[in-house]
Amino acid sequence: MKYTEGMLKEDALKGKTIVVTGGGTGLGRSMGKYFLELGANLVITSRKLDVLKESAKELEDETGGKVLPLSCDIRDYEQIEKVINDTLDHFGKIDGFLNNAAGNFISPTERLSHRAFDTVVDIVLKGTYNCTLAMGKKWIDNEEPGVFLNIVTTYAWTGTGYTVPSACAKAGVLALTRSLAVEWSKYNIRTNAIAPGPFPTKGAWERLLPGDLAEKFSMKNKVPVGRHGEHQELANLAAYLMSDYSAYVNGDVITIDGGEWLKGAGQFNMLEEVTPEMWDMLEQMRKK
Amino acid sequence: MKYTEGMLKEDALKGKTIVVTGGGTGLGRSMGKYFLELGANLVITSRKLDVLKESAKELEDETGGKVLPLSCDIRDYEQIEKVINDTLDHFGKIDGFLNNAAGNFISPTERLSHRAFDTVVDIVLKGTYNCTLAMGKKWIDNEEPGVFLNIVTTYAWTGTGYTVPSACAKAGVLALTRSLAVEWSKYNIRTNAIAPGPFPTKGAWERLLPGDLAEKFSMKNKVPVGRHGEHQELANLAAYLMSDYSAYVNGDVITIDGGEWLKGAGQFNMLEEVTPEMWDMLEQMRKK
Amino acid sequence: MKYTEGMLKEDALKGKTIVVTGGGTGLGRSMGKYFLELGANLVITSRKLDVLKESAKELEDETGGKVLPLSCDIRDYEQIEKVINDTLDHFGKIDGFLNNAAGNFISPTERLSHRAFDTVVDIVLKGTYNCTLAMGKKWIDNEEPGVFLNIVTTYAWTGTGYTVPSACAKAGVLALTRSLAVEWSKYNIRTNAIAPGPFPTKGAWERLLPGDLAEKFSMKNKVPVGRHGEHQELANLAAYLMSDYSAYVNGDVITIDGGEWLKGAGQFNMLEEVTPEMWDMLEQMRKK
Amino acid sequence: MKYTEGMLKEDALKGKTIVVTGGGTGLGRSMGKYFLELGANLVITSRKLDVLKESAKELEDETGGKVLPLSCDIRDYEQIEKVINDTLDHFGKIDGFLNNAAGNFISPTERLSHRAFDTVVDIVLKGTYNCTLAMGKKWIDNEEPGVFLNIVTTYAWTGTGYTVPSACAKAGVLALTRSLAVEWSKYNIRTNAIAPGPFPTKGAWERLLPGDLAEKFSMKNKVPVGRHGEHQELANLAAYLMSDYSAYVNGDVITIDGGEWLKGAGQFNMLEEVTPEMWDMLEQMRKK
Repeated sequence: MKYTEGMLKEDALKGKTIVVTGGGTGLGRSMGKYFLELGANLVITSRKLDVLKESAKELEDETGGKVLPLSCDIRDYEQIEKVINDTLDHFGKIDGFLNNAAGNFISPTERLSHRAFDTVVDIVLKGTYNCTLAMGKKWIDNEEPGVFLNIVTTYAWTGTGYTVPSACAKAGVLALTRSLAVEWSKYNIRTNAIAPGPFPTKGAWERLLPGDLAEKFSMKNKVPVGRHGEHQELANLAAYLMSDYSAYVNGDVITIDGGEWLKGAGQFNMLEEVTPEMWDMLEQMRKK
Repeated sequence: MKYTEGMLKEDALKGKTIVVTGGGTGLGRSMGKYFLELGANLVITSRKLDVLKESAKELEDETGGKVLPLSCDIRDYEQIEKVINDTLDHFGKIDGFLNNAAGNFISPTERLSHRAFDTVVDIVLKGTYNCTLAMGKKWIDNEEPGVFLNIVTTYAWTGTGYTVPSACAKAGVLALTRSLAVEWSKYNIRTNAIAPGPFPTKGAWERLLPGDLAEKFSMKNKVPVGRHGEHQELANLAAYLMSDYSAYVNGDVITIDGGEWLKGAGQFNMLEEVTPEMWDMLEQMRKK
Repeated sequence: MKYTEGMLKEDALKGKTIVVTGGGTGLGRSMGKYFLELGANLVITSRKLDVLKESAKELEDETGGKVLPLSCDIRDYEQIEKVINDTLDHFGKIDGFLNNAAGNFISPTERLSHRAFDTVVDIVLKGTYNCTLAMGKKWIDNEEPGVFLNIVTTYAWTGTGYTVPSACAKAGVLALTRSLAVEWSKYNIRTNAIAPGPFPTKGAWERLLPGDLAEKFSMKNKVPVGRHGEHQELANLAAYLMSDYSAYVNGDVITIDGGEWLKGAGQFNMLEEVTPEMWDMLEQMRKK
Repeated sequence: MKYTEGMLKEDALKGKTIVVTGGGTGLGRSMGKYFLELGANLVITSRKLDVLKESAKELEDETGGKVLPLSCDIRDYEQIEKVINDTLDHFGKIDGFLNNAAGNFISPTERLSHRAFDTVVDIVLKGTYNCTLAMGKKWIDNEEPGVFLNIVTTYAWTGTGYTVPSACAKAGVLALTRSLAVEWSKYNIRTNAIAPGPFPTKGAWERLLPGDLAEKFSMKNKVPVGRHGEHQELANLAAYLMSDYSAYVNGDVITIDGGEWLKGAGQFNMLEEVTPEMWDMLEQMRKK
């Protein structure tokens, strides 16, 4: 199963420094780990410094790379500026910024207060453009190139019920991606996005849907390739988009979901439930 | 139920001549009928002249308008040129052209021969661009304005299994729409498309899926608004896009499907199966 | 020029009450005026009560309809709830809600403070979902049907430089549209959007780009149909989407921009600058 | 300039056999070459056997890999079946199929005959689905997994004037991609597409636009990142999508165009012509 292995040449990110928001756990941690394996220095941020410190130590032990854990609430612009300045003090420069931090909860929209709606939008959309503004201004001031990579979702363009604040916010992040890919390219700043389908993260889905529901509504069943994604698969794609190898990919959103959203979207895809025997019968009826 | 009534002002298409391919039956006939009610002259074409003639007579009786039935296989360019010339001889000019004729069959793709694939593509894509080329050249030569309206499907942009030749062909028609909306606007030719969801036509769905299957896979269940579309609803939209009222709509595809494709596409929309009681329980668990 | 006239049958909105945010001026006022002409009661809101009152009086004089002007900052949820309650007290019910209020300014993104970014996002995205949440909860509680119509932009899906906060926010509004079209359809609530291209509003473009720049970068030049849109054209489309005639259109965004965005997007559309003589020459060269 | 180097680990395609249509020259040859370097066996097809044979020899000399040149007109289904059977005889299996062959010419659409239109559609759309049908049926019959990769264009979804037959055909190929990604995933067949922006190929652009026009309408000027793509950049992406590393990417189209299409599409991107001094002035005017 090659897709559980790293794919890029050794040292593909050698000498680069990459910041990953929400980098202490889950998919952010997995992407960060692979960046380390490819030679990058890593900065991980979140609101939980103790978790970050533990992850940083583990990641250093596992990869031999250097990890700087920095506490940051991305809703607070000044905290982001501090992360950037601390990183520059520590590693000397920043080459890539992965906007990965997010928040979400599943609920019928009419059960949400406007404050709950704000909470998700503030973390996902404001947090992302805060990071992007602070980092972009610094790169532009310092006349340094940079790469943004933003984690979105497939419902950023289709919308979806039951996680509507997240849908609005992720759509905003996708627009940010496409807008700055063009506007800031003159400063040698590239911007792309990834829309991951169902990748299991310890407790995430269960936290969203406890008990039997997690199984009943298992995403796995909706995915044409018939399985969840492996973290390394996302990490491979993210490392490609962070690396110089993707220098001509700009403003794109790459979907890595096994075909999930298309399966639901295509009008006749539900006919996969028709059995071969029934197709045989239909063919014979048609011929008559 | 206002949506079963015509919506435009009287005489909204007064004095216009509109050609509808596949206009003798089904949705093509319904749209044509409303064009007549709004004061247009109508030309209906298909390969079955006897059906056309009967429809023409009925339509004239029902609306008091004028209908010219003309036999045409749209895969044959010369036949289309003849339709256009006969129409110009008869009505003096052509104002609108509705590319409605189509062909389709439901089947797993691997059961199709390449010839079966060709058949659908030849009718839907080649037929449509044949009509569009012949009509466009005539309008450009005569320095007359014109309006194209193309019927596509929601799977023109999502793709779909089990009707793949149609998906390929309709996607091509959508690209034709968007391309010529720009290129031919300098000749005062506008081009738009409609993507209808499930509208019942006598026998169509049953012909595609005979027996119990038609019920089992009833499209109705997939539509957020909970019902099939009414022919007049499509006719209202088509008449708007054919009329001068839509003069600033150009290159667009308007979906009229009750929200069907979005329901399948959005990642969490299946959670509508969660009951209010379960949502209550989830909320309480979260609060703990 | 039929497109400067109203298109729907008399009384198409008879007896309906429609709220238009940002309804005192510009396109909001134009859409509201047409709703009145079609028999609706109108509520217009903005932060400037004096402007609203004057518009309300003018609109009543022009149309003979009833207009209720209500002050409202849509960033403040309680103010929206008050607008809804005052409207219900005054007109007895609400049938449609047009999210039209917006804010924008043109600037290179790196010149924006995060607070400036917030200002646009708060008005456009938060304002819109505040209104939508408050109105939707009321409709659901009262078991009444309703229609949302949201004004977005073509850069909601393409993104754009130089108005990036607006791009993020409008993308969010589009996702809101597509999400609730599905989720709230079970409550008989429909949701659609319009993406208008360049429609001139007194001072708007000049305010965004003062002096010669407004002319130099005139949108008109970018539009295939070669002109700005007329307010009535937008009003016709908006009235259709507010009316029962569009009952099967749900979750769609209809673009009314003369083909502007497609012209820029299509890779070879710039070849319209090639003259007929050059095309002749190219053809001859190819034949050799 | 790392982007001119191969990015994947050694032997990333070791033991795989990949067919590339249109593989004797241009981008097809470049992708094929990199597949060889990564350990794959290569089959290249086109209508010109002499060109293929020469390329095959060169490619074997350059990479040490094995190349089988096979003559094939992809409009002829039987010829494709022969290619597949000859490849199976020679290499024992086929793992990947790159639909790269295409045809195009630049012309105002009204100057095209319907036969010229057919020519492009037959090569691009019919050729691609012929190959896909023949290869897919073989993989399904033999119960072997497989990967399709289809080369499309950014105008597959936006449309474009002046290459309208290609726009229709490429849109069809994109729909084919999205359709079969879902339908054939149950047979372990994955399907993806790449939409390349301007990559220079010897003579291609000059053939399309001879003389000064090639310079005048140079694509390079339209690309945010300010340059043409390098063949290796496309080869890196293609190799990733052909390899097992992309096992969870299915039904996606990845754009590699430096941001070109988004730059044209976004409504305000033309404001990049505003100078910093003018922005200063605008800011000061706004503050007053």
